[in-house]
Amino acid sequence: MAPDVGKVIPVERRRTCLHVQEIQTRARVEFQDITSQIEKIVADSGIRDGFCVVFTPHTTAAILINENADPALHKDFDNFLKRLAPSSGDYAHDDGNCDAHLKSALIGASKTLLVENHRLILGTWQGVFFCEFDGPRRRDLRIKILSD
Amino acid sequence: MAPDVGKVIPVERRRTCLHVQEIQTRARVEFQDITSQIEKIVADSGIRDGFCVVFTPHTTAAILINENADPALHKDFDNFLKRLAPSSGDYAHDDGNCDAHLKSALIGASKTLLVENHRLILGTWQGVFFCEFDGPRRRDLRIKILSD
Amino acid sequence: MAPDVGKVIPVERRRTCLHVQEIQTRARVEFQDITSQIEKIVADSGIRDGFCVVFTPHTTAAILINENADPALHKDFDNFLKRLAPSSGDYAHDDGNCDAHLKSALIGASKTLLVENHRLILGTWQGVFFCEFDGPRRRDLRIKILSD
Repeated sequence: MAPDVGKVIPVERRRTCLHVQEIQTRARVEFQDITSQIEKIVADSGIRDGFCVVFTPHTTAAILINENADPALHKDFDNFLKRLAPSSGDYAHDDGNCDAHLKSALIGASKTLLVENHRLILGTWQGVFFCEFDGPRRRDLRIKILSD
Repeated sequence: MAPDVGKVIPVERRRTCLHVQEIQTRARVEFQDITSQIEKIVADSGIRDGFCVVFTPHTTAAILINENADPALHKDFDNFLKRLAPSSGDYAHDDGNCDAHLKSALIGASKTLLVENHRLILGTWQGVFFCEFDGPRRRDLRIKILSD
Repeated sequence: MAPDVGKVIPVERRRTCLHVQEIQTRARVEFQDITSQIEKIVADSGIRDGFCVVFTPHTTAAILINENADPALHKDFDNFLKRLAPSSGDYAHDDGNCDAHLKSALIGASKTLLVENHRLILGTWQGVFFCEFDGPRRRDLRIKILSD
């Protein structure tokens, strides 16, 4: 790219925002809708377009992107994951929360979302959930936004 | 970093590209190879090196990175996910597509790929699939590329 | 943003680092802790804050973020995934490694981590694992870091 010789070019620096979001869960297993909290962080960041990574540093929790319209679906997610990873299985890890680690591995600790016009790109029925599998606990998410 | 005093420096701005990719699926469950479509978006973007996020705003669909050499494998993926999440389970969510939400949660709505030399970094047998779990439908993916 | 007219502005360019990490696995199924290797790549890159994508180009392997404190947990992950995807199932894909593809799809080929103060953001008990499901083999990971 040729420089505009003799002219100073304004430099738009990339902007990022790293946010720690506290979450209090109230049951052993909980699917907490955190969409509005992330939308607020995106809006407050002033970043118009970019990427948003939601990361849980907890190994018995996960981040899920799925439907947030029907609360009944959470019961189905709970039953489904319980069937795959029963809480009372014959586990070598004897902290009593092995099922929670397995569920966390299936759903995943990190998800990348897109930001457009100061909002998350999400489908009509789509939300972001913090999945607690070994609660109730106080949790700290990391949410990082990178501008285009 | 010290400025080159008295000299104007050319500024290479970061470049991004957000693309909406239409997908038409033809069966209830389908693993549609979208690798060549994403490669075309990467090539058209002019971005040489960077990141590529593939995101589905649909909650009964997912993005999968896996082998695209043997079509028989799709049948195995279908059977495997059906066994984990049967279509006729005892579900609280009564839209008749609860299994599709569960499969979507397992495979994931968002995947991050790497771009090098105007191409996706992929293994020899590796491709990117749009996973339809509640089709046939018309779907709109979001594909965003960020340059280094 | 208004330019500082008549003054040359130092330009801090974004920095990225793409690293190929060789992995040698020693069993058919193995959960190899690669946290210290990624931390070294982050430290060597000189990038203070940013994003780190860990990607496997292999379709019978995956990247897992979970507890790295109790080695017994690996046995549980192995048993769990074996139960979901038995090695001797009735599969259409007849390479003898169909179970490995299914496990890879569940855990995922790509994970995005956050970098702060030249280190990965990880919980106290959290690590990054290369999951081998069809070893022993020599594998090549791609690890890319993007500065803020």
